[in-house]
Amino acid sequence: MNMRDKNTKKIEESPLGISEVKYFSFDSLVLESGEVLSPVTIAYETYGTLNEKKDNAILICHALSGDSHVAGISKETGKVGWWEFMVGPNRAFDTNKYFVICANVIGGCKGSTGPSSINPKTGKRWGISFPAITIKDMIEAHVKLLDYLKIEKIFCAAGGSMGGMQVLQLVYSYPDKVVTALPIATTLRHTPQQIAFNEVGRRAIMGDPEWHNGDYYDKGFPANGLSVARMIGHITYMSDASMKEKFGRRLKNNENYDFELNTEFEVGEYLKYRGESFVQRFDANSYLYITRAIDYFDLGDNKDIIKRFSGIKTKFLVISYSHDWLYPPYQSKEIVRVLKYALVDVTYCEISSTYGHDAFLIKNEEQEFLVKHFLDNAYQRIKNGK
Amino acid sequence: MNMRDKNTKKIEESPLGISEVKYFSFDSLVLESGEVLSPVTIAYETYGTLNEKKDNAILICHALSGDSHVAGISKETGKVGWWEFMVGPNRAFDTNKYFVICANVIGGCKGSTGPSSINPKTGKRWGISFPAITIKDMIEAHVKLLDYLKIEKIFCAAGGSMGGMQVLQLVYSYPDKVVTALPIATTLRHTPQQIAFNEVGRRAIMGDPEWHNGDYYDKGFPANGLSVARMIGHITYMSDASMKEKFGRRLKNNENYDFELNTEFEVGEYLKYRGESFVQRFDANSYLYITRAIDYFDLGDNKDIIKRFSGIKTKFLVISYSHDWLYPPYQSKEIVRVLKYALVDVTYCEISSTYGHDAFLIKNEEQEFLVKHFLDNAYQRIKNGK
Repeated sequence: MNMRDKNTKKIEESPLGISEVKYFSFDSLVLESGEVLSPVTIAYETYGTLNEKKDNAILICHALSGDSHVAGISKETGKVGWWEFMVGPNRAFDTNKYFVICANVIGGCKGSTGPSSINPKTGKRWGISFPAITIKDMIEAHVKLLDYLKIEKIFCAAGGSMGGMQVLQLVYSYPDKVVTALPIATTLRHTPQQIAFNEVGRRAIMGDPEWHNGDYYDKGFPANGLSVARMIGHITYMSDASMKEKFGRRLKNNENYDFELNTEFEVGEYLKYRGESFVQRFDANSYLYITRAIDYFDLGDNKDIIKRFSGIKTKFLVISYSHDWLYPPYQSKEIVRVLKYALVDVTYCEISSTYGHDAFLIKNEEQEFLVKHFLDNAYQRIKNGK
Repeated sequence: MNMRDKNTKKIEESPLGISEVKYFSFDSLVLESGEVLSPVTIAYETYGTLNEKKDNAILICHALSGDSHVAGISKETGKVGWWEFMVGPNRAFDTNKYFVICANVIGGCKGSTGPSSINPKTGKRWGISFPAITIKDMIEAHVKLLDYLKIEKIFCAAGGSMGGMQVLQLVYSYPDKVVTALPIATTLRHTPQQIAFNEVGRRAIMGDPEWHNGDYYDKGFPANGLSVARMIGHITYMSDASMKEKFGRRLKNNENYDFELNTEFEVGEYLKYRGESFVQRFDANSYLYITRAIDYFDLGDNKDIIKRFSGIKTKFLVISYSHDWLYPPYQSKEIVRVLKYALVDVTYCEISSTYGHDAFLIKNEEQEFLVKHFLDNAYQRIKNGK
C-alpha cells in the first residue's frame, strides 16, 4: 500500500508457500438476464485440506479488483495474496483447521471467464458482447465450483466490500448452504452516491478514445480512462484522516512549490502511481462489467429481505470500519437490523480505524481476533454436535 | 440544479433587471510566484449604488466555476446570477442599502485574464504558458479593482467555497480594508482529500488526447476529460442523503434494468448532463489553473494565523453546512477557533441541510436570515458611529 513499494522489491514470504491457480470449466451458466454464458471457466485457489465430513470449507469472496490469490506466494507474480494476514496456519482463517477456497468472479480478468476471454463462437475476445453479470451470477458460478468440489455446505462465507455483497447474496439464495457468514464493510444495496463514483469511472473509460467501444484488445488500451477510474476509487477507499496521516500537504520529493503546472503533491503522485500500476494488471472492460454488477446489487426491500431471512440458521458476524465513508457503518447496521428482525443470530462490531474502506485489507489485530474467535466458536459447536 | 432544466426553457426574472459585465484593465500584476502578468483585465458586475461615504461596498467572491454574474439577468445568456436569491432589493445582500461587486477571478474564463486570453506578446492564447495563479493573486487583482473604484475599505467580503478562501485571504492580507467577513463552507487550507479530488480531475483533463498539452484552442477541446472532472466535482458537491432524495436507485426514464451496458441510473444520467453542459461554458485550462490555486491555498500554521489576526477589527460570521463532506463543518470550526484565539469578533452557525457543499448556493431561509441580520446590524453600528 506504500508508494515506496515501487522502489523496493522485497522478497515476499508466506507460511503457505507457493499457491497455484486451478481452473474448473463447465459447459454453461444461465445468467440472471436470461442469457446463457458458455463455456465458463472459474479460476480458484485453495488452502488447507478439506476434511472427510467436508464440513470445514470456507469460501472467501473478493472485492472489485481482487482475484483468487487470497494468500500464499503466487507462482506467477511471486507476491503474497490480498488477504495474506487473514489466511494461513493459526491465522483467523486457520488453514490448519479449515479448507479455504477463493475464486475469481465471472466477468473478471484473473482467470475466470470475462470480457477479455475468447468467445469460442467467434474466435475473438468477447469485449462488450459479453453478457451482463450480476452479483447473483457470481454466486451461481461459485456454487457450480462448490458442487464440483463436492461441498454441499460451507462452514463460512466471508468477504469485504463486493465480497460482502456476494456473502449476503449467497445466504439469500442458498441459506442452507452457509453455516456462518462474514459480510465486512458492505451494504444491502448500492446507494446513488456509490453508483455515482462508479459511473464517473466508467465514463472515464468509455470516453477514452483508446476504448474503441470495448474492442481495444488488438489496438491499444484505454489506460488514461482506467487509471482515472482507479484514482477516483482510491480516494473513496481511503479517508480524510488517513490521507492527512500519510501525505499531509507535502509536495512530491519534499520540493517547495515552484508555481509550475507539473508540481505535484505527494497525494497526487501516489494516486497517479496507483492508477498507472492498476492499468498493468486489470482489464478495462472487466472494470465496466464488475462495477455495473455492484451498482445493480440490491437485495430488495428490507421487508422482503426480512421475510426471506426469517428462520435461517446461518450465524452472522457483521463488521464495519469507523472511517469507511464509501460503505459507512450505517449500512452495516442496516444489515444487522434486518437480520435481527428476521431473528437471525447476528453479532456486530464497528472497528475503530483511521483507514477508510481499505481498512479491512490492512493488517489489524481486532479484525483477526473477531474473525478467529467467531469461526472457532462456531466450529467447536459443530464438533460438539450443536 | 434540476436535470429537467435542459427541457424547460423558462424565462428568468430578477428584480435587478439586466446586469451587464464591465471590464477594467490595468498594465500589470506582480504574482505570488514573482512573475508579472501583463496586461490584466478584470470582468466584474455591480449592483446597487456606492454611497458618498463609500462605506457600503460588498465584495462577493465566487467559487471554482462561478463568474461575476452573481445576480440579475445576464445580458448575454438571459439567465439569473449564481446567487440571485441572496442579492437584490431587500434580500440578504440588500441592493437598496449596499453596493455589491462581484469580479471574475484571474485565471478564469469569464472575462478576466486567464489561460484562454490572448497573450499580446505572442498574439496567441496563453494556454499553459499562463503563469501560475494563487488565491492571493486573485485577491491582489480584486484590490486593484477596488482601488480603481476608489473604495478604500469594503463593508463586507463574502463568499463560499473558493470564494470563502478569498475572503480569508483578503482579511489576512488587508485586515484594515474589511469591516465584516463572511466565509461560508470553506477552510484555512486544502486537505489531501480535497487536493486528491482536484488532482484526479486534472489528470482526466491532461490525459485527454484532445488537451494537446494545453494548446487545444484551434484544434478541439478536451471535452471528455473536463466532463469527467466536473462529474467528480458534482459528486463532492452533493451528499449521500441528497442523492437518495433526488435520485434513489431509479433508472433513467423509469426503465427496468435490461442488462445492457448502456442502461443508466438517473444519478448517472444527471452527472453526465452536468458534465456535458459544463464543457459548453468552461475552459479546461482555467479548470487546471483554478483548482491548483485552491489546492495550494494554505493560510499557514494556526499559530501564525492567530498572530496575524490578533487585534484586527473585522467582524466575522462563519457558516457551514451539516451535510457538506467536501468542506466539512470541522473546517469552519477550525476557522472559528483560530479567530477566537486571535480575540476576533466571530459568530458561527452550522446550518442543517441534507444538501452537501452546494447548500450555500441553494435558496435557504436560514442563510438569508443570518447574513441579512449580521450585515444590517453591523451597518447600523457604522451609521451610529460605533
